[in-house]
Amino acid sequence: MLENVNSPKDIKSFSVEELNILSQEIREAILNRVSQIGGHVGPNLGAVELITALHYVFDSPIDKIVFDVSHQCYAHKILTGRKNGFLNQEAFASISGYTAPFESEHDHFMVGHTSTSLSLASGLAKARDLKKESHNVIALIGDGSLGGGEALEGLNFIGELSSNLIVVVNDNEMSIAPNHGGLYKNLKELRETNGQAQNNIFKAMGLDYVYIENGHDIKTLIETFKSVKDSSKPIVIHIHTNKGQGYQFSESEKEKWHYNMPFDVQTGLSTVSFNQENYNQITLDYLRQKIKTDDKVVVVNAGTPGAIGFTPEIREEFKEKFIDVGIMEEHAVAMSSALAKGGCKPIFWVLSSFVQRTNDQLSHDLALNKNPAVILVSWTGIGSNDATHLGIFDIPMISNIPNLLCLAPASKEEYLNVLDWSINQTEVPVVIRVPSIVMSDYSLQLPKNPKKPTFHVTEKGDKVALIGLGASYWLAKEVSDLLKNNKITPTLINPLYYSDLDTEALASLKENHQLVITIEDGLISGGFGQKIASFLSRQGVKVLNYGAQKEFTDRANVKELYEKYHLTPEQIVEDILFAIQ
Amino acid sequence: MLENVNSPKDIKSFSVEELNILSQEIREAILNRVSQIGGHVGPNLGAVELITALHYVFDSPIDKIVFDVSHQCYAHKILTGRKNGFLNQEAFASISGYTAPFESEHDHFMVGHTSTSLSLASGLAKARDLKKESHNVIALIGDGSLGGGEALEGLNFIGELSSNLIVVVNDNEMSIAPNHGGLYKNLKELRETNGQAQNNIFKAMGLDYVYIENGHDIKTLIETFKSVKDSSKPIVIHIHTNKGQGYQFSESEKEKWHYNMPFDVQTGLSTVSFNQENYNQITLDYLRQKIKTDDKVVVVNAGTPGAIGFTPEIREEFKEKFIDVGIMEEHAVAMSSALAKGGCKPIFWVLSSFVQRTNDQLSHDLALNKNPAVILVSWTGIGSNDATHLGIFDIPMISNIPNLLCLAPASKEEYLNVLDWSINQTEVPVVIRVPSIVMSDYSLQLPKNPKKPTFHVTEKGDKVALIGLGASYWLAKEVSDLLKNNKITPTLINPLYYSDLDTEALASLKENHQLVITIEDGLISGGFGQKIASFLSRQGVKVLNYGAQKEFTDRANVKELYEKYHLTPEQIVEDILFAIQ
Repeated sequence: MLENVNSPKDIKSFSVEELNILSQEIREAILNRVSQIGGHVGPNLGAVELITALHYVFDSPIDKIVFDVSHQCYAHKILTGRKNGFLNQEAFASISGYTAPFESEHDHFMVGHTSTSLSLASGLAKARDLKKESHNVIALIGDGSLGGGEALEGLNFIGELSSNLIVVVNDNEMSIAPNHGGLYKNLKELRETNGQAQNNIFKAMGLDYVYIENGHDIKTLIETFKSVKDSSKPIVIHIHTNKGQGYQFSESEKEKWHYNMPFDVQTGLSTVSFNQENYNQITLDYLRQKIKTDDKVVVVNAGTPGAIGFTPEIREEFKEKFIDVGIMEEHAVAMSSALAKGGCKPIFWVLSSFVQRTNDQLSHDLALNKNPAVILVSWTGIGSNDATHLGIFDIPMISNIPNLLCLAPASKEEYLNVLDWSINQTEVPVVIRVPSIVMSDYSLQLPKNPKKPTFHVTEKGDKVALIGLGASYWLAKEVSDLLKNNKITPTLINPLYYSDLDTEALASLKENHQLVITIEDGLISGGFGQKIASFLSRQGVKVLNYGAQKEFTDRANVKELYEKYHLTPEQIVEDILFAIQ
Repeated sequence: MLENVNSPKDIKSFSVEELNILSQEIREAILNRVSQIGGHVGPNLGAVELITALHYVFDSPIDKIVFDVSHQCYAHKILTGRKNGFLNQEAFASISGYTAPFESEHDHFMVGHTSTSLSLASGLAKARDLKKESHNVIALIGDGSLGGGEALEGLNFIGELSSNLIVVVNDNEMSIAPNHGGLYKNLKELRETNGQAQNNIFKAMGLDYVYIENGHDIKTLIETFKSVKDSSKPIVIHIHTNKGQGYQFSESEKEKWHYNMPFDVQTGLSTVSFNQENYNQITLDYLRQKIKTDDKVVVVNAGTPGAIGFTPEIREEFKEKFIDVGIMEEHAVAMSSALAKGGCKPIFWVLSSFVQRTNDQLSHDLALNKNPAVILVSWTGIGSNDATHLGIFDIPMISNIPNLLCLAPASKEEYLNVLDWSINQTEVPVVIRVPSIVMSDYSLQLPKNPKKPTFHVTEKGDKVALIGLGASYWLAKEVSDLLKNNKITPTLINPLYYSDLDTEALASLKENHQLVITIEDGLISGGFGQKIASFLSRQGVKVLNYGAQKEFTDRANVKELYEKYHLTPEQIVEDILFAIQ
């Protein structure tokens, strides 16, 4: 069937039986791609019939389907002219794992963080109404995404809309990991009563409501969608689906199969292996010991336990010392601040690309109140990733908030020292930027008074000073070694602190340095190096800042990106030699 | 009664009748303060009995009362040893308008943005449970604050708590202005059914629920609080109150009396007047015309219409062209992005201190998608304000996000040109920073291609270049004039753009300038001037950055603040003369 499908129009004449066969072929196409290059397995397999039925009933792109997080958009991509990106290995790279308007007129937004679809869809609906148009707007949101503040705000807003907006809740009974929160008790109640439970969060928010128990029954899906098409008021269609449907391994181990690296389709076994030491494991090993000796330590996470190594087994081990709040980053920061206020030692462990949800909470709930919570920012740095998952924006966002002590350790040993000190102290909120690469160097120690920003001069030299923050310290060290071949012995500095400058150390550079180089594993704009440029420019010392340019890159080739940013040791050395001529 | 009350303990033996008299005295004390120095009138008058009853039943500070936004904390302050701040004019300044732990052990958090109390209270409750303590934790939240994403996340989390947390919902039927969203239809339904309505947002979220119809009936309040004290699970007490209760003017005009400048208690008339031209009025005058000629223009606001001059009358005039989404800034940004995607011309008008809720939405929902919405950031700049309402953090937060064209006009005429161009263009998302002072200068025009950052050199000179962003342009001009007295004719620049540099203009300064001064009406750290320092330092040009230091100031004396930041024209001139010696 799929062979003849190049746009949603091509399925309009299909019978239910044919749509079922098509769904099976879509599933195979999805597995073909994800088994070779990795991707979101469970969410996509679970939404195939639902999306096929949507495209059968509605007329995309006139009717607009807005995906939440778009972990579940593969079937949509396959049906809207992009099946090659799933069938042919050569075309895989041409299609992103998320909705992308630059790929197709059927995609309306680039998304990759959860909980945005309801607000985005409501804006399209409002625009339609203001322009007196009449198409359908459909938001497709997973149960996991519903708990996020932005989604709940959107739901609240939609509850007062008086025009068409169809909210399809794809309820597969879990987020990436199990769901958390009162809302999910209600969804369970609704599932168990075939949608008849007296308590109904959607009705309470003012929306009409329909329940579909079998989200893989295309006939029912089509009938229901037809019945709400062109509805003149907002309605929720709550659809119960099976995450990972149609593939034995993803059906039985749902959390593991949310996202997978390449695997063998027959055996389900991974075809790649990672034996490298990594900071998740290093941190887990530390925390596992720490909770045994310190009752007050508690780890907080917002819906991404797998991404930080908290498997179901480890969660079991941590018991009440691990709080997964679900996809609610704002709540996680505010609650962590209060946990610290209440005498506990919370560590909110979050990925760089998700911490940007919490600017106001870091500022007011935490920093203004100076509560000694620890924020652990993982998955940092310039690397290959989707535009929505870049790890380069956290330094500007966090380090310009007052009262936060921000630390970017460079080595494993320094990291563990920093982590231990941060948890044990009870005076200031601390942000730790987990480095992107594991390097070992016992000489990188905490200063005597860790609250006072003190840069660590690891090699004394003159003429040129190299300041490499966190993971970038090792790049600075490579530059240092290359410079020595050019008969320059530079000063090498591991600053560790990126919220504040060690102005003494910097001022003293003036004496016998004519050039200072800063390197950071993130955005230059608004970041660490620019603070140094601002300080040293006053002193008349020339500064060159290195890091990422202010742009969204999408699945960039890392090597090319580094070259573009002039971030290879050779390029930096060349710049230095030119600058000190 | 109040004379003998210095701590909550002192009211424990009072009869209901005495508590009623006390409430009346508290009301008078509140009016005494707000009529003389301004403050939140309606929210505080409406919560007097409720707070008095809380302190009668619970044992603060062992039992912990967490206030939301703390617009309603005055009675609490009066009962917890701070009545002097309300009774004696000399002591007014010693007490802030918000909860503040540095004032009293009865205050647990500094707050000033809405919707944080549920998360904060849940953190205290969790800490209590982990430490195996047993006090009560009470969150006091207004109905208006409930719609914010952080509050809804908190509510969701609390729905799964299995220990004591008492959520007191102070429902005065409005936010600052009328409420918006489906949630509020439900609260209305609950009020109209004495809490018996079948749809119940709180029960749907998994919480127990009690309703009190008369939130000024101390006897009922006390009985109900006693019945839930030491509850072993979370419960909502939904209390219907009258905003502005007990003062004729605030009872009859609730929105106007949410916050008031000084007034005459007898007549309710303002005792101060503001006849100065202001940007609210300038913008309103423009928009009023604009919506007549352009169907697609729509103004979006998040629960603060009064703060931008959208009185009930003006809202009536704008009809569907004004969308107040309630206190849901995240939703406002995402919806605006989608409105632009849908072909409308949305202007999200927001205050600097509240826009910091939307970092992720500005980045992903808006900037990554390049939808041509306009974000209008008001109440900017270095000035006297509470620590939670500072207007200095928006430049670092916004200008380091890719794809946003950020403009800081300096004069009224430039502002109107910028605003008109931004709304009419359909290519890029634009952020306009509304200046803090109204100045007129017709010579400040938009460059020919407004999408290309082009700095405007308004006075050509040499040796020293002064770059003053937005409102700071006028300070730079003052410096320029003073320098001329010192026989230096500086170059004066109005950069307008703060997202990107005009590198050509900057590079050309190298020729005949040895010093560049940047001034911005906001944080130096991560801001505009540091980008210039970074660029020019490479070229070997000395740069001095001026602006606010990275700190939370609380109700600072503006003159002292400027002096501390070396921001008087005389100080800057002194620095310049020293630097170019």
